Amino acid sequence: MKKISAVLVLFSLFQLASFAEKIKPAVNGIEFPHGYQNWRVISVSHRVDNKTLRVIYGNDAAIKAARAGKTNPWPDGVIIGKVVWKQTKAKHWQAAIVPNKFVHAEFMFKNSKKYAATVGWGWARWKGLDQKPFGKDASFSKKCIACHTPVKKNDWVFTTPASLPKL
Amino acid sequence: MKKISAVLVLFSLFQLASFAEKIKPAVNGIEFPHGYQNWRVISVSHRVDNKTLRVIYGNDAAIKAARAGKTNPWPDGVIIGKVVWKQTKAKHWQAAIVPNKFVHAEFMFKNSKKYAATVGWGWARWKGLDQKPFGKDASFSKKCIACHTPVKKNDWVFTTPASLPKL
Repeated sequence: MKKISAVLVLFSLFQLASFAEKIKPAVNGIEFPHGYQNWRVISVSHRVDNKTLRVIYGNDAAIKAARAGKTNPWPDGVIIGKVVWKQTKAKHWQAAIVPNKFVHAEFMFKNSKKYAATVGWGWARWKGLDQKPFGKDASFSKKCIACHTPVKKNDWVFTTPASLPKL
Repeated sequence: MKKISAVLVLFSLFQLASFAEKIKPAVNGIEFPHGYQNWRVISVSHRVDNKTLRVIYGNDAAIKAARAGKTNPWPDGVIIGKVVWKQTKAKHWQAAIVPNKFVHAEFMFKNSKKYAATVGWGWARWKGLDQKPFGKDASFSKKCIACHTPVKKNDWVFTTPASLPKL
């Protein structure tokens, strides 16, 4: 019995390990933020230029900061995630644009010291439903920062938290 | 000291009670689903006909059903919530449509027995940041059902859960 239990424990640990490892870190070393699909919402957007819909998620620190209006700067520990889908028309309401194919999930990790070299944020993106890391080498952050430069004075963040009734 | 403590306890209870009571039930008797702002996301939409953006939230039962693909019919206990904002253009990205003023939060409560008279769903809407109940009398559900008739074969629900990487 002891042997069987030991084998089962080892097998379970192996399964856990392989699950945690199956999505690779970004090429700059940032680990995949497992479970972001369960995070709460900061806002949404519809980019008509590239025909995509987005949900902007926040980890607990981000939701706390957003609801307290502490977003310039966002505090260290905040993670903001943007999930992007190609758009389509709702089948039974043609004037409604809704998500179609999942494109990618991209994240900003706030740590003013750790990520001082990249304007205080760690940048990462995982593509497709299999969540493959984006970019060939760590220099991809330059592209992120270049695109976010118009919101430099907004702590490099495009999103304004959507208004909600107070809890 | 005992008196002061008793007064403080009473005062705290009074505050809790007044908080819970300050948002009135819908006119059909459905209670306000406190805390929906913390629910997880089923999908999003952009209605170009009335220039609004929406997040479709689900309670735990709804998220479980959505992820298991059990949405026709949705199981009893499911609550689906739609939060609606007027749209505006993002200040620093003109091609992005983002939420502006909060309009209302509207809900469908699935209970095939309790709500058999209204196609198996309880219907309710609360308007504005102060969450005032919508409608003058319980007949407002007829309007909800009339509008949802195109999706009668989809258990009266417009929303298709957005595709996300598996957890």
